[in-house]
Amino acid sequence: MSKFSPAYEILAESLLAQGIDIETVKTALKAQAVETPSWGYANSGTRFKAFAWPGAAVTTRQKIDDAAVVHKMTGIAPSVAIHIPWDKPEDGDYVAMREYAEEKGVRIGAVNPNVFQDNEYRLGSFGNPWQGVQARALEHMLECCDIMARTGSDLLSLWFADGTNYAGQDSLRGRKRRFEDNLRQVYDHLPENGRLLLEYKLFEPAFYSTDVPDWGTSYALCLKLGKRAQVLVDLGHHAQGVNIEQIVAFLLDEGRLGGFHFNNRKYADDDLMVGTVNPFELFLIYCELTAAALGEAEPGRATAMKVAYMIDQSHNIEGKIAPMIFSVLNCQDAYAKSLIVPRGKLAEAQCAGEVLAAHRILVEAYRTDVRPLLAQVRGEMGAPIDPVAAYNASGYEEQIRKERGLAATSGGFQ
Amino acid sequence: MSKFSPAYEILAESLLAQGIDIETVKTALKAQAVETPSWGYANSGTRFKAFAWPGAAVTTRQKIDDAAVVHKMTGIAPSVAIHIPWDKPEDGDYVAMREYAEEKGVRIGAVNPNVFQDNEYRLGSFGNPWQGVQARALEHMLECCDIMARTGSDLLSLWFADGTNYAGQDSLRGRKRRFEDNLRQVYDHLPENGRLLLEYKLFEPAFYSTDVPDWGTSYALCLKLGKRAQVLVDLGHHAQGVNIEQIVAFLLDEGRLGGFHFNNRKYADDDLMVGTVNPFELFLIYCELTAAALGEAEPGRATAMKVAYMIDQSHNIEGKIAPMIFSVLNCQDAYAKSLIVPRGKLAEAQCAGEVLAAHRILVEAYRTDVRPLLAQVRGEMGAPIDPVAAYNASGYEEQIRKERGLAATSGGFQ
Amino acid sequence: MSKFSPAYEILAESLLAQGIDIETVKTALKAQAVETPSWGYANSGTRFKAFAWPGAAVTTRQKIDDAAVVHKMTGIAPSVAIHIPWDKPEDGDYVAMREYAEEKGVRIGAVNPNVFQDNEYRLGSFGNPWQGVQARALEHMLECCDIMARTGSDLLSLWFADGTNYAGQDSLRGRKRRFEDNLRQVYDHLPENGRLLLEYKLFEPAFYSTDVPDWGTSYALCLKLGKRAQVLVDLGHHAQGVNIEQIVAFLLDEGRLGGFHFNNRKYADDDLMVGTVNPFELFLIYCELTAAALGEAEPGRATAMKVAYMIDQSHNIEGKIAPMIFSVLNCQDAYAKSLIVPRGKLAEAQCAGEVLAAHRILVEAYRTDVRPLLAQVRGEMGAPIDPVAAYNASGYEEQIRKERGLAATSGGFQ
Amino acid sequence: MSKFSPAYEILAESLLAQGIDIETVKTALKAQAVETPSWGYANSGTRFKAFAWPGAAVTTRQKIDDAAVVHKMTGIAPSVAIHIPWDKPEDGDYVAMREYAEEKGVRIGAVNPNVFQDNEYRLGSFGNPWQGVQARALEHMLECCDIMARTGSDLLSLWFADGTNYAGQDSLRGRKRRFEDNLRQVYDHLPENGRLLLEYKLFEPAFYSTDVPDWGTSYALCLKLGKRAQVLVDLGHHAQGVNIEQIVAFLLDEGRLGGFHFNNRKYADDDLMVGTVNPFELFLIYCELTAAALGEAEPGRATAMKVAYMIDQSHNIEGKIAPMIFSVLNCQDAYAKSLIVPRGKLAEAQCAGEVLAAHRILVEAYRTDVRPLLAQVRGEMGAPIDPVAAYNASGYEEQIRKERGLAATSGGFQ
Repeated sequence: MSKFSPAYEILAESLLAQGIDIETVKTALKAQAVETPSWGYANSGTRFKAFAWPGAAVTTRQKIDDAAVVHKMTGIAPSVAIHIPWDKPEDGDYVAMREYAEEKGVRIGAVNPNVFQDNEYRLGSFGNPWQGVQARALEHMLECCDIMARTGSDLLSLWFADGTNYAGQDSLRGRKRRFEDNLRQVYDHLPENGRLLLEYKLFEPAFYSTDVPDWGTSYALCLKLGKRAQVLVDLGHHAQGVNIEQIVAFLLDEGRLGGFHFNNRKYADDDLMVGTVNPFELFLIYCELTAAALGEAEPGRATAMKVAYMIDQSHNIEGKIAPMIFSVLNCQDAYAKSLIVPRGKLAEAQCAGEVLAAHRILVEAYRTDVRPLLAQVRGEMGAPIDPVAAYNASGYEEQIRKERGLAATSGGFQ
Repeated sequence: MSKFSPAYEILAESLLAQGIDIETVKTALKAQAVETPSWGYANSGTRFKAFAWPGAAVTTRQKIDDAAVVHKMTGIAPSVAIHIPWDKPEDGDYVAMREYAEEKGVRIGAVNPNVFQDNEYRLGSFGNPWQGVQARALEHMLECCDIMARTGSDLLSLWFADGTNYAGQDSLRGRKRRFEDNLRQVYDHLPENGRLLLEYKLFEPAFYSTDVPDWGTSYALCLKLGKRAQVLVDLGHHAQGVNIEQIVAFLLDEGRLGGFHFNNRKYADDDLMVGTVNPFELFLIYCELTAAALGEAEPGRATAMKVAYMIDQSHNIEGKIAPMIFSVLNCQDAYAKSLIVPRGKLAEAQCAGEVLAAHRILVEAYRTDVRPLLAQVRGEMGAPIDPVAAYNASGYEEQIRKERGLAATSGGFQ
Repeated sequence: MSKFSPAYEILAESLLAQGIDIETVKTALKAQAVETPSWGYANSGTRFKAFAWPGAAVTTRQKIDDAAVVHKMTGIAPSVAIHIPWDKPEDGDYVAMREYAEEKGVRIGAVNPNVFQDNEYRLGSFGNPWQGVQARALEHMLECCDIMARTGSDLLSLWFADGTNYAGQDSLRGRKRRFEDNLRQVYDHLPENGRLLLEYKLFEPAFYSTDVPDWGTSYALCLKLGKRAQVLVDLGHHAQGVNIEQIVAFLLDEGRLGGFHFNNRKYADDDLMVGTVNPFELFLIYCELTAAALGEAEPGRATAMKVAYMIDQSHNIEGKIAPMIFSVLNCQDAYAKSLIVPRGKLAEAQCAGEVLAAHRILVEAYRTDVRPLLAQVRGEMGAPIDPVAAYNASGYEEQIRKERGLAATSGGFQ
Repeated sequence: MSKFSPAYEILAESLLAQGIDIETVKTALKAQAVETPSWGYANSGTRFKAFAWPGAAVTTRQKIDDAAVVHKMTGIAPSVAIHIPWDKPEDGDYVAMREYAEEKGVRIGAVNPNVFQDNEYRLGSFGNPWQGVQARALEHMLECCDIMARTGSDLLSLWFADGTNYAGQDSLRGRKRRFEDNLRQVYDHLPENGRLLLEYKLFEPAFYSTDVPDWGTSYALCLKLGKRAQVLVDLGHHAQGVNIEQIVAFLLDEGRLGGFHFNNRKYADDDLMVGTVNPFELFLIYCELTAAALGEAEPGRATAMKVAYMIDQSHNIEGKIAPMIFSVLNCQDAYAKSLIVPRGKLAEAQCAGEVLAAHRILVEAYRTDVRPLLAQVRGEMGAPIDPVAAYNASGYEEQIRKERGLAATSGGFQ
């Protein structure tokens, strides 16, 4: 009498026939980790209207509570990113924050500075023409380096709203140089073993030019800083038609892929749930990561092992915690499919120049229904078989709705 | 002794040599009218941060004051669009609003309903799956029809945030039908001679699908409604690579171009000052309008004469009134250049299939420096020769800064 | 002892639990029909280099042979589109062509005129400024109407290369009117029961403006022509970010969706195998079609039943017949998934405004591995279980390679 | 009595008032040099149809003749790029080619290898999975290095059609490494003082992934090669919405901008005449180049002085020589406008954070009609005042039409 579902057993057999050991796949899946963002549990919004969700988190404690629920439901979301100052403790006690998180079963992940929400940053932060504003931004960054040490975080995650709205508004080369200078100082203050992840973005909220518009700029700046500076890829920050998995492959091969901000978009930077617009693209991105991690080539292998997988989404109409669970599961699905690609066979077809055969190998893995496998993995990990259903049945949503009510604003760690 | 600048005289001569009478051009320029939006004078913003501008208007009276200043400086901005409820008088006295505007030398232009900022509209307004929300939106629309009558406006300008964020979230055909039904009721309540202008938008804030995504949808809906329903073209609402002037030409030829929301964008819907990213495109749009207005073909000619030119921008870092003046002037520049295209010569080259010659005729008109002409027109109209400089010298900015201070929110007509 | 595979039985059970009868699904799948294009079996190419494929078809007889093989392997590709003059019989005997096809087990599908490859068409065909060229194009079109009658085709499939390369090159409104006039004459000459399908395209080979740039233009022109004029959607002819399934939904609801040119693209009009860049999008398109076909709303239902599914691809490096089989199967996969969406449950979630639940219903159907179902369907239809493998094993590729050799050019029906 | 036109004198005065010496501007304009491509004078085409132009060049001698005419008419097109093997002398006598060009008054510019038109390159050249094909491509490249020496060229201009059409077709990291290895060998064989310019392209003819998709990849590869490897920017090779002038600024500041392939596009890689879709963008690109050249910052200044300005267009319907003249003049216009930007005043406004004022300074320079200035420059250089008119009046077009007739194919240096 088997403990496995019939669908699982059929899948296991089929994989075995292709030379893939399902136990190895399961081991990898159990080690997966996707970080969720504290700000994703609070009310945020769009240009037009942020629809407040009843029960949305206000305090950082509440955000940590919610992140812990997502981890409990999925088993693979063990850390939560924080945003300074949105998560700043009133008393500055970051150790208490760290301990609170650990109590709840998660840890503090990446520290995200904010140099775009004060009036001083109207013309940018590190790229600002005024030295005083640059200094202020730098000071905040250095404080965040300190917070890393205090929260046990080894990641400084940098996204800049810097840029210009009109041609001629500022010197493009001037802004570039100010950026370099200021980033250098941040890099020099990183805690030991800390990494600086530099995000890029084609557009918005600076509309004519953004100071770090593409992976090339981020990569070039990281090269100048040093080995612990790496590129952060946000799936919604590219122009249309860009091949993101190829950027991932390039950065892995050069040892400069630091992490992801996962989300999805149809046209602009929509911050929708990851994998909802083009799930095949998410699979292809995971294929590059898995190939590097399972391969022998360095620095690709070592780099892949240290990639930070972070969700960065803005849920405006679909709730807060349920879509986060959904997103984590989409990552799990994509990762699982990447793990069952028969890599030896694929490499053979590629080397032989068999275009269609090679493509088909990938597609067949993608078409495989991995839900029986994931159910099994969850069961073995002690997580609910169907996390979405389990969350809905848990009563948590009703509880926080009652306890927290409808709040428009976000508080700190109180 | 001439009253004209030497540059103006050289231009007049050169135009004459091409068979263009500069007096006719000037007459056309003096009749130009560009409407500015009340909300453009208040603080608005981006997804990330709205930088409050010192002196930005709060009340509708202040917005009208500012619009009047723009008209005074340019001579061609005689009306101001209002947004309900942002401009709703506390006492409901729209006649007072109308009189206040007229006192200041401007009139009330298009009425813009708002069916996107209440919590009820989370899943849309006219496209909402819930009948009650649709009814509420409809009621607001009908109120706006009434406001048209009371303010003397003949334009109802409709933009919808409606749509969905995820595939499957709602029935695409269902939403279309709800839209049709509700629009029909609005149309039936338009004041006599009132027109309904229906805007479209590819993306945002509904990210997976917007209920009126393109001009085709807007046009098809207008066809069903009747002759007083027309398409409203917002320059920032298209996918990349779309030829906007061709849409303009098509709609003119079918009698369905109602008006514009002028602005500019680099990638998304940036709401930058019109003409700042691709001024040649703005010129080409005006070329279609001028060709239709000066041509004999109907309904193109009659349609072109009634097009509503409205600015819809969101200035976040460049002030409020000065960029509005700048934008109006960009429209004037583009219009002037379109007026000096030698149309007979152009038509000849086109009919002869002389690709390069025909293109060059347009380019040479575009390259012409029309600033001496515009200075002359302004002088003759009694407007300042250099409106930007005149505004800067007027002391108005300092005055409102002192009087109004720094306010983040927008009030109504108090 | 069951005749079904265990995976099939698990799937059938799971569907049953959702209220879906697998036999009904199979019946629908057996009635699916995807048309392949004669020109897809010949060597064609890109701007840079057309790589000749050994064994590629040269004569129309060979193309029909190949199409018949694709039908034999898949069971659902019963017709072949022809292109005039590429498929013109030397002796003008279209009845022979028709009989040859029927002998081989396929029928002649859409007739595709060519008004872009003669030197006369340098400035366009129907939009050409010269009356003589328009007349020539019209004459060709009327000949194609005649060919429809002779080959038993009821579809005239129109794609135009018309447009301009430079602003000012021609009058945009003038071109529009010429188009209308000429299309009217074609429409009036359609054989009884014949339909005219009008394709649109944003760009290429006319780069500044194409005369039928978007579905809106095509739709507007069809409305003017009459009920037997419908829009043809080519998946590669849209701007980036456009929601194609929404266009499909709109046209279905208005009774104006005529058919598809299936292919896929990453950025431009790449004419890759359909479903290879974003298979989820293909699924969503089929969801609209299936929803309309299974629904009660007219004219959506009747329109969906008559949609022409046609492949239009250009295989440059991956062979000719194998990728065609692959493409047909991708359509089958997408269609099958659309058939197992629990529509009642979906409608309920949509009406309740349950964003996440509704989306998830679609996603779960998409995630289902329908390969066991398709294998069963094929078995029951007498087609090979694995068409790609069967084709590779058939020896056909080797045979045509030997018989036909390497030919760069395409001949007609000899 | 003045030798200057009144319009010129007004312009000179106005510039003087802004502190700009028109003589300095003229000196710069006289030193401008734009290279034209030999292949631009022959018949080339689009995916659909290459319309043969009567009189188009067939032999390399004819192409050089045509390039010499363009130089004679404009005064600023002193060199012609060659394409190997299209321009390969039958007897291998490159010295004769060089002498022929010099006789005609032009010199041989960049050498452009071709590793995409042989059947061997179906799966790429340097990125090809087969070692033998890579070797063949490398051999051709090394031959081109040799041709540089023999023709006196110091530029090797590399564009690759390499990439894949389908996900999984080949290893993205594998292709990257093959590229690096092969480029290294080319670099090592460059003639002394020779530079390698590496072009990038987002799409086409490899549709799923191109091996050098963006400037970041090209830059990263150049960094690894050495100082004489630089990035080549083709204006049509970016995704929509990309800020090209910012890429130019970045590469200048890092000493890695090698040159341009000038052309313009509306959506894809249209290879239209440069400056015809968005002339403001061309102006902004020149602004960055001029700012670097006139500035003091190194390596920007030195890099700007050595940038290779090359046209790479494909004229399909507008003739061959006339559009080339038109394109060169568009570059001249943009350059002239960039030279009259009051840089001191601009820098002041930028440093003060005066968004609108800084933008306006650029716009006012752009609005200036520089045609009187360019006429004067041409007159002083001994070139025709109106090059397009002069070319039309020269009888050259009629002469080559008669002599060369209508030829579809391109020959070599015969």
